Amino acid sequence: MSGYLGCKGYLKYLGFIPVLFLALAVFMTGCRGQGDEPGKGQQPSLAAGTPDSIRQIAEARGLSQKDVEAALKTYIPSGRFDEYVLFASGGHSGQVFVIGVPSMRLLKTIAVFTPEPWQGWATGSAETHEILTGGDMPIGENRTLNWADVHHPALSETDGDYDGQFLFVNDKANARVAVIDLRDFETKQIVKNPNTISDHGASFVTPNTEYIIETTQYATPLPFHEYAPLEEYKEKYRGLATFYKFDREKGRIDESKSFSIELPPYWQDLCDSGKKVSDGWVFCNSINVEMATGGINHGAPPFEAGVSQKEADYLHVFNWKKAEEVYKAGKVNDLNGMSVIPLDTAIAEGILYFMTVPKSPHGVDVTPDGNFIIASGKLDTHATVYSFNKIMDAIKNNNVEGKDEYGVPILTFADVVEAQVEIGLGPLHTQFDADGNAYTSVFVESTLAKWRLGPPIYNGPDPWTLVEKIPVQYNIGHVVCAEGDTVAPDGKYCVALNKWSIDRFLPVGPLHPQNFQLIDISGENMQLLYDMPIGVGEPHYVQMVKADKLKPWLVYPEVGFNPMTMSVDPEAASVGNEKIVRDGNTVKIWMSAIRSHFNPEHITVNQGDKVTMYVTNVERARDATHGFAIEGYNINLSLEPGEASKVEFIADKPGVFPFYCTEFCSALHLEMMGYLLVKPSPGS
Amino acid sequence: MSGYLGCKGYLKYLGFIPVLFLALAVFMTGCRGQGDEPGKGQQPSLAAGTPDSIRQIAEARGLSQKDVEAALKTYIPSGRFDEYVLFASGGHSGQVFVIGVPSMRLLKTIAVFTPEPWQGWATGSAETHEILTGGDMPIGENRTLNWADVHHPALSETDGDYDGQFLFVNDKANARVAVIDLRDFETKQIVKNPNTISDHGASFVTPNTEYIIETTQYATPLPFHEYAPLEEYKEKYRGLATFYKFDREKGRIDESKSFSIELPPYWQDLCDSGKKVSDGWVFCNSINVEMATGGINHGAPPFEAGVSQKEADYLHVFNWKKAEEVYKAGKVNDLNGMSVIPLDTAIAEGILYFMTVPKSPHGVDVTPDGNFIIASGKLDTHATVYSFNKIMDAIKNNNVEGKDEYGVPILTFADVVEAQVEIGLGPLHTQFDADGNAYTSVFVESTLAKWRLGPPIYNGPDPWTLVEKIPVQYNIGHVVCAEGDTVAPDGKYCVALNKWSIDRFLPVGPLHPQNFQLIDISGENMQLLYDMPIGVGEPHYVQMVKADKLKPWLVYPEVGFNPMTMSVDPEAASVGNEKIVRDGNTVKIWMSAIRSHFNPEHITVNQGDKVTMYVTNVERARDATHGFAIEGYNINLSLEPGEASKVEFIADKPGVFPFYCTEFCSALHLEMMGYLLVKPSPGS
Repeated sequence: MSGYLGCKGYLKYLGFIPVLFLALAVFMTGCRGQGDEPGKGQQPSLAAGTPDSIRQIAEARGLSQKDVEAALKTYIPSGRFDEYVLFASGGHSGQVFVIGVPSMRLLKTIAVFTPEPWQGWATGSAETHEILTGGDMPIGENRTLNWADVHHPALSETDGDYDGQFLFVNDKANARVAVIDLRDFETKQIVKNPNTISDHGASFVTPNTEYIIETTQYATPLPFHEYAPLEEYKEKYRGLATFYKFDREKGRIDESKSFSIELPPYWQDLCDSGKKVSDGWVFCNSINVEMATGGINHGAPPFEAGVSQKEADYLHVFNWKKAEEVYKAGKVNDLNGMSVIPLDTAIAEGILYFMTVPKSPHGVDVTPDGNFIIASGKLDTHATVYSFNKIMDAIKNNNVEGKDEYGVPILTFADVVEAQVEIGLGPLHTQFDADGNAYTSVFVESTLAKWRLGPPIYNGPDPWTLVEKIPVQYNIGHVVCAEGDTVAPDGKYCVALNKWSIDRFLPVGPLHPQNFQLIDISGENMQLLYDMPIGVGEPHYVQMVKADKLKPWLVYPEVGFNPMTMSVDPEAASVGNEKIVRDGNTVKIWMSAIRSHFNPEHITVNQGDKVTMYVTNVERARDATHGFAIEGYNINLSLEPGEASKVEFIADKPGVFPFYCTEFCSALHLEMMGYLLVKPSPGS
Repeated sequence: MSGYLGCKGYLKYLGFIPVLFLALAVFMTGCRGQGDEPGKGQQPSLAAGTPDSIRQIAEARGLSQKDVEAALKTYIPSGRFDEYVLFASGGHSGQVFVIGVPSMRLLKTIAVFTPEPWQGWATGSAETHEILTGGDMPIGENRTLNWADVHHPALSETDGDYDGQFLFVNDKANARVAVIDLRDFETKQIVKNPNTISDHGASFVTPNTEYIIETTQYATPLPFHEYAPLEEYKEKYRGLATFYKFDREKGRIDESKSFSIELPPYWQDLCDSGKKVSDGWVFCNSINVEMATGGINHGAPPFEAGVSQKEADYLHVFNWKKAEEVYKAGKVNDLNGMSVIPLDTAIAEGILYFMTVPKSPHGVDVTPDGNFIIASGKLDTHATVYSFNKIMDAIKNNNVEGKDEYGVPILTFADVVEAQVEIGLGPLHTQFDADGNAYTSVFVESTLAKWRLGPPIYNGPDPWTLVEKIPVQYNIGHVVCAEGDTVAPDGKYCVALNKWSIDRFLPVGPLHPQNFQLIDISGENMQLLYDMPIGVGEPHYVQMVKADKLKPWLVYPEVGFNPMTMSVDPEAASVGNEKIVRDGNTVKIWMSAIRSHFNPEHITVNQGDKVTMYVTNVERARDATHGFAIEGYNINLSLEPGEASKVEFIADKPGVFPFYCTEFCSALHLEMMGYLLVKPSPGS
């Protein structure tokens, strides 16, 4: 075990920025050579006896024996299925990506926070608009937020294992959390935190999905919409940890049963729930215990320097079951409809403790058995391993080395740490396999490090030691391994989520894709299998679930199904009840869609009429999706087989507007159309 | 050569719908069996002598010899580049997808018509909003169209060959055309047609990109925003062919030098430009020469029946060089700022002729030598081949078999047809290889058909005959082959753009991905290599260009570069000129971004202030992109190295709003932030 602070002082304020840039400069020089001569240096060296049919292709394409093996390990023939599914946050695309492993094919983008017309998401359907506007800004005039910065997906869990039912994601940019139902892979709910505006540390679930956890990143006044100058940072700015109650039956967050815990204005970061022995506890990192407020334009140190001055930050230890009791006992304040446990109460009730972590920690990850909590300082070289039993002992014995300036007790570092393992420069996040190994992403070095845990989860020789590192291309953020953050990791595969690709792919302009690298961890040595460009967003975290845990619907279970309510809509149109009903300047239309026509095909209204359309795809065949677009009116629905949807609009533009099916649904798809005729109002 | 009408009457109105459903039902039954047992029936049968290292992987994964070959033909090792690039229209996603071949990896999504926050597209930057609103609706109050149905990408051409400079795409749903610059892979211009609202037949270019061609799909009154009832369809509804002049120097469409040609209210469909011998002419298909107006809700035949009653439709033959002369001579009407050549003038001046095509044709494709024009009726079984020389003779000799009811001369079918080749049921689109073969997508059959052309482009045995068909999974729309619609096709690869995937991929809910299937056409027989799911849109057409024709920038050429003007912005912020300037209730801010800070970091304004920010990423390193998001304010920029952008907003919400870099740009990316503090106005 190394000493208290692994960073040895060489990353101090004045020194660390040059060091980081030096590391980067070296790395850039190193990789450019490869980029300039793609393919050079790859010598085919196939095993003796390889038949000509294979050898000829490999030699023509310059594939080495390792390349051939990687090709065969990742190729999925037509009609065969991938073994695992990645759910990747889409970063500032606002969406979620679904990717098959080992083929690394993008199976679907799930529209969440950003309107997406292919899926008919918030581009005309009243239901999807209602879901999206559920996350509106809570202050002043209505503002529908139309993008997000999605960071951490969390699959629902039962007993700490993925159950394949729901997926939760957060919006760092606006402090929102969304619920996706994995029966139809569609977003069902978006919740805006009424008191904070920034939530990097989300979403994380408790082991039976009792709660979805969201922590504030950048501290603001509490609530954020009450102005306070930065001079009052320590007094008025605060963080929050919010525990959203999940109603699994309804498939929705129940805000009325959710609560927040007030926190000091550090920048709370990622969390992980305790599991098995440590169930009932949650661990969240933080940075900026300096409470730096930046101000480079006033001559103050910039945030990058001010936030990184101290040798250690605080890992937050929450007793969430105790917090739930305190909340249920009513020891809370109401703040804009959210119950908030005051910081003093959290301290007094034994809900919150700190542990020091060197230095500027990012990830925190609990081992599959729940015994250890691993945190890594991104300006450190170690993974620091805390023992849950030691934490419990320290709490029981009030073994603290002080309090922070808000009175939160700080557990004695030396008595809660189990080990510090030398990993490399800039360790971030850790996942696990089934054999007692940990896999940590190392950002500054651009490597993935495999290392051994210790007893009781690993009982072999050389515990708490580095095993192997593999270079990645480049700048790895998170790493994900197969079910690697659950109580039962699978091993087999890890994916390095690299933020930069630089020279790995054909150039596509100044905005480069990210690079997901699939790594085989089943053998003696880690083997790079595949580079997948992500040219549609910047994923931050990913979870990898066994495909057979997912049981999605292939079509909606009944005709007239409303995906928002997940039941048959009593207002849905059906074959035989198609009609147009006028009442004053209100026009209601019930419309069916089937290959290859809509009914009705002619809709004549007056300019200014309020039009409501109920459109149902009455098909039962798998993949028989219909679109429904009205030209010039910003309306496009995607109606999967059985789906019913509602459209509401004012017919404000006069003229003749074709509507049509935007899916190539049949040989006669171009003929699946009709006309909306809008008679001009006399005055227009 | 077959007789006049290849469809032999069995697809007549009363009969064809059941026939199509029968075909579909059989096919559905056939494919379901495969879906229920993925992987079954695949027997590894590797060539004798295959070494154990390869055999073990192949057997463990159930790969046959053919699978192994396909894997090796498509695998790209890390850092090696794909050989071709697909530019795929994104259908109703409104975007364009860039895909590498043979790996079939999605390299990038180009934001075009739909806001996309990862790229900072129309989510805060004033420049991108200006480009998007360039395509606003031309009538009444402003309505920014926020989605599109992108159908046909067209790469810019020089002498009929791709030159890698620009890409044009259309929006079928709103009749718009966009220009993408392939130096930075960003959209530069969106143009709304002021007179039509529906433009399936676009974009197509003339051989030196003189014009970008757009034809109306669904006829409307001319202009579409003048109401006329469907009873006046024949009198008042019209189609248009619009020729947008492209200014290659400026990289923009010049609307002031563009013109339209008035057309009968048939539904004009796809086009292709003549090339080489046929340069100067454009060929566009049409359907609905019946001028059916539907009305199932009034007891009239639905469009799907009414549009398909006749045995033949009209292929439009345009003399665009003559049209340009007529336009320049001023023989036009002005209609909402667009010069329109009246239909009578087009006829009188010899600009427009018709040729009959059996039946409900869709695609039209000119052979690489320019000698033949191939059209296929989707309710027919043939590819009908027209001879350009015969067309010229017929025009010269006024060899017509009649006129349509608007007076357009119809060239005598028997005298312009070179051949009719029996292909299969539902042929749609045709591409070419370098050896005189054509590849036609056959929708109803779900096959790709390879067939021989004839002299002078193919001079071997058995001209105009089918060679081979390969099944595809399922419902192929377009097909693309390597440079397969240019004067110099490459052969090697085709991609089948299948609209349905059904059982090909892991289920991801009721909305299934499309399926791009890569097919090796270099050998004796076509070989299916790879299934690529498209889970992010519904591509319609694709072009495949040799990667080395593209010369994109890796970073912007200078710091302070404005991608909209493609030059250094005189207002751009730079290091040293960062500042905040207040003038009344207007606040202007010049901000720089570099790893890992913004300058300024503190911005304090009053509620209601009008804020303008000039933000520059001053980095020069490849991939050193910075984001710039203001929380709660719907603002996110993507600033590539060197890029400058402008943000304008009203600080209408009081409170404290962190701003931060949304790219994981460095180890200290979380620290790259600042605060926007909005003091509440006294009255709020």
